[in-house]
Order: sequence, then structure tokens, then C-alpha cells
Amino acid sequence: MIRTRLTDRLGLAHPVVSAPMARVAGGRLAAAVSGAGGLGLIGGGYGDPDWLRHELAQAGNARVGTGFISWKLAEAGAQGEALLEEVLSRDPALLFLSFGELGRFARMAQAAGVPVMAQVQDLAQARAAVQAGAIALVAQGTEAGGHGASRATLPLVPEVADMLAREAPEVLLLAAGGIADGRGLAASLMLGADGVLCGTAFWAAEEALVPEGQRRAAMAASGDATCRSSLWDVARGIDWPDQWNLRGMRTDFQDGYEGRLEALAADETARAEWLDAAARGDAQIAGPIVGEAIGLLRQIRPAATILETMIAEAAALLGGGWQRN
Amino acid sequence: MIRTRLTDRLGLAHPVVSAPMARVAGGRLAAAVSGAGGLGLIGGGYGDPDWLRHELAQAGNARVGTGFISWKLAEAGAQGEALLEEVLSRDPALLFLSFGELGRFARMAQAAGVPVMAQVQDLAQARAAVQAGAIALVAQGTEAGGHGASRATLPLVPEVADMLAREAPEVLLLAAGGIADGRGLAASLMLGADGVLCGTAFWAAEEALVPEGQRRAAMAASGDATCRSSLWDVARGIDWPDQWNLRGMRTDFQDGYEGRLEALAADETARAEWLDAAARGDAQIAGPIVGEAIGLLRQIRPAATILETMIAEAAALLGGGWQRN
Repeated sequence: MIRTRLTDRLGLAHPVVSAPMARVAGGRLAAAVSGAGGLGLIGGGYGDPDWLRHELAQAGNARVGTGFISWKLAEAGAQGEALLEEVLSRDPALLFLSFGELGRFARMAQAAGVPVMAQVQDLAQARAAVQAGAIALVAQGTEAGGHGASRATLPLVPEVADMLAREAPEVLLLAAGGIADGRGLAASLMLGADGVLCGTAFWAAEEALVPEGQRRAAMAASGDATCRSSLWDVARGIDWPDQWNLRGMRTDFQDGYEGRLEALAADETARAEWLDAAARGDAQIAGPIVGEAIGLLRQIRPAATILETMIAEAAALLGGGWQRN
Repeated sequence: MIRTRLTDRLGLAHPVVSAPMARVAGGRLAAAVSGAGGLGLIGGGYGDPDWLRHELAQAGNARVGTGFISWKLAEAGAQGEALLEEVLSRDPALLFLSFGELGRFARMAQAAGVPVMAQVQDLAQARAAVQAGAIALVAQGTEAGGHGASRATLPLVPEVADMLAREAPEVLLLAAGGIADGRGLAASLMLGADGVLCGTAFWAAEEALVPEGQRRAAMAASGDATCRSSLWDVARGIDWPDQWNLRGMRTDFQDGYEGRLEALAADETARAEWLDAAARGDAQIAGPIVGEAIGLLRQIRPAATILETMIAEAAALLGGGWQRN
């Protein structure tokens, strides 16, 4: 057992939260993580109400949270607010907001008595999240899978910790990006985090909504095989703001558009080919959206096993197991 | 005191090595780090024999090592080999090779009885360094200052550790990139490293060869203020291979050449302006070459104080100080 301010404040057995990966982190995954003593988050992602209602139902009575992409929720206007109200009315464990303005959505959550956790990628965002009343920040490094920015986890976490110690010592801090086992968890606690948020580690869970072909490709990969690019968004026709791009596994298809993504944007046939490959789980064309930590994962396991193994490994390291003399 | 395989094998008091920063890590800095119980490296860098002889003399009788940029040493042909022979004949603590083919230079060191440490930025390089007979690998993440590549320290180190455990368990592993205090050192040990190599932390040492204006600017900066770019090399007219670029502090001058470095390469007046600013330590134009960890550093201190503070902080964390309940 690893006790931290995060486990105490959120009433968890373990200081581990699973990331609300859009279209991947459904109700079964979130419920499995919460059931094993962590906190599972459902990926509200691009704000599809039918998908979200279905996955909330799949979570059953498990105490889970929900994550949203803030700029996408804002873009959806009144419909976005209605969806958020619907989620908040179900009393989630927390609301996790990433990528964009927090203010209005944070206030809606606070009015509903739901705590807000905010993802940040630099110090300016961290200060804005504190201002918006977040009870916890997730400092995410560039090594993470999915969307993110340029700073790396190892130096970002202690710099945010120093800022919080000076300006908002009651706010919790989670590390994210590159953490997929007990080594990463133990390291994050040394850096000043109260816990971790893991995407890629739970992308590799049996309960994650991932096509089989992508799973196979990812389990054989080194972190060297990933890169940051906007290709995934261009292929899917999602107009992400420039400040964030996405990490996933590089493919030959992608290398063909290196430095000329506008050609892909203009080529409907090529985009259809990519979308078809993604639907089929063809990892030769549509690279799995995973982080550098994929190189630490070699098998698909139940989420509970992933979490319990991570905790046991971290506890052993924290107890002196790092000494290998 | 923190004992690891690195301290045992190299006879050090502390598992900390200072990076051979070109033109910054001279003999006084390296001697101060070794004198305080770590291992100091002189930056042989671009292979200027007069600079290197002067700095080796400055180190006096301290047991220090020397680092070289492999591709630059190779480019210098017979003169490069002669310089390396001269350094090896002085029986350095070790030879540190970075950025390029190791084979021939590693064999020269081994013939002279000098152990080789190799910097690697991905798994392929790590395997090549093992093949070349390195006794220690430095796995360097993209958050590091100076030249480097794209993988981040936190997930790179455990993936290299797993590879070494399977393929070459006797080879030592150091973490580099983003590590500037006891938190980073303790985290690196959790990740499976036997020690750390720090650049930015010792760039901020009194003994480092850094102009005053650059020091002042860096001590006020967040890690958010750094970026990776080839601007420094283009401005200095150094023809670095494409696979490596450099991290340092972003400046307005630099933003003016965003995405069009070829314009700077062609503009002798602009390059002369940059070189003059660099010589004067004008950090508004020539950004200090530091990593993201600059955001963890607030004062210029003697190298011994930096090292002793790092060790005390890490030892406290490893002893249970990470618990803040």
C-alpha cells in the first residue's frame, strides 16, 4: 500500500488514475481501475452523447470520473453544456478537464459539488488551473501518448511542485507521461507528485476499446517507434488548436506525409484509406495512439493486474529495492 | 551517502557525473565536482587542442574524465586521433563519447586502458554502445540542454535498463536530461539508473565558464522558456548532422527565424550579430544553452554545494521523505 495526499483526499487505495482516452477508455476500463483501488476515468473526449451514455452505463455502480476536451466542449456550445450538466448530475468522482479554458466548465462542476482535476503542460497552464479552482493538477509531459505539448515529465513535475508549494500548497499534483509501471510511479513520488495518471499502461488493458491489430503492433514496439505529429487529427478531420499535437506510433503512411500534412488534408482518398485502416486496426497505416512508455509493456493484461503489479513494484522500490549492489 | 554500482565500480563517493559541456565545462568545474566526490568531465567538445590543454592543466591533479563529440572527432581525421591519443596518455578517469560512431575511438581508449562511457538517445544507439564495449551508458532525454534527440528521460531510462538486464547486465546506466536536484537523482534511481549525469545543474556552478548576462537570464527562467532548435548551430556555422538539434533558451532573435533557418545561414550580418551577442553574454539574442531543468535552479553556487545539496535531498527522499502526509 502506498499512501499519499491523493489517496487520502479522494479515498483511494492506490495513487493511480487511468486517463480518459477518447474512444478507448470506456466504462468497463474505468470501472475495473476503480474496482482495483485506483480511480478510473471515462473518456468523454469529443463529446458524442450516445457513446458517453453507453459507457457511463457500462461502468455500472463503480465510482468513476469523466474527462472532457475543453476546447471541443466549448465549440459544442449549448449542446456541450447540456452534456456536461448531464454528466455532472450523475455525481462523478471528479471532472477532468484538458486542453483549453477551464473557467466556465470548472464553475459548473463546482456548482454541482463535483471536484475538478485539470491537465497542464506548462507553468502558465498550471497557474491558470489553480486560479480556476482545480483541486488537482495533472502535469503531463511530451512523452505521453495522445495530445500534448513539448515539456517533459521529469523536469516539469518538480517545477510545478515548487510553484504549488509557494502559491497553492493544498492543490494536489499528479504526474503523467511516460509512466507505465512501478518504476515510473516511484519516480513520480520522488519528483514531488502525489500520484500518477497513466494512459498507455491502461491502453494495454484487456478492458480498453482497442482493435486487435493495433494491440499486437504496440506490444512489439519500442518507445523509439513513437513520434509527435498532427497526422492523426488531419486524417480524422479534427481541427485541433496548433499548440497541441499528438503522440502515437509512426507508420510508413505517415512518413510519406512528413512536412506536408496539407497534402493529406486535401486528399480525400488518402484520408479515407487511413480511416478505414484505423477502423480495421491496421497498425501499418494508422499508428496506435500510445506514448513512449509503450516500450515498457509486453502483454495485454486485465486492468486490475496492471494496477496491482505497478503498486507492488513501486512499494518494493520505495522500501529500498532500488539498491542493486 | 548513496551507494550504487556506479560509485562502487568507479570509486566515487556520489553517483553523480558532470556533463562535458563544450566550452563551459573546463578544468576548474570538473576538478570541483571530482573533489566533492562525484566525477567531473571536461568538455573536449569541438576538439580545440589549445583550449583542451589549458583546461586539463586547470584541473591539476584531480581525477577527471574528458568528453568528445564523436562525429567532430572523426571529421578532424588524423588530428582528431592525435588529440584523443594525447588525452588518453594522461590516464583520464574515463572517456565519454557522444553523437556518432563509437567503434574506432572506443578501441583506442580500450587499448590505452581507459574505460568508455557512451551517451545514447534511443534503444538502437544503446545496443551499439554495448557492442562497442562501453562500460556505462548515459541515456539522455530530450529535456536536456545542448544537443540531443527526441525521446524523454522518464520512459527512456527504464526501457534501456530492461534491455541491459536482458543483454548486458554488467553495463552501468546513467540517466541524463532534466535532472538538477535530489528529486531528479532519487527518481532516476527508481527508474533503474545507477547514477546521473547533469549538465544544466553544473552550468549554474560558479566554476562553469558562462558569461554573466547569460547566468542572470537563466536564473530567472522557467523550463517553459527553452526549446529545441538548430539555430545555435546555424548561427555558429557548425554543420551538425540532422538527427541532433539543440535545447537552449528561446529568444526574440530566434523567433524571428522560426521555420526559416536557411535565411539565417545566408545572412552573414545577422550571424555576426548573434556571435557578438554570445561573446558578450547577451541572453536577449543568444539564448543560454540550458535544459528544461533550468526552472529548478535559482542561484549560482559552488559545484561542491550543488552536489552536496543534491545528495542530501536525494538521501532524505530515499529514506522516506517523499511522504508528505
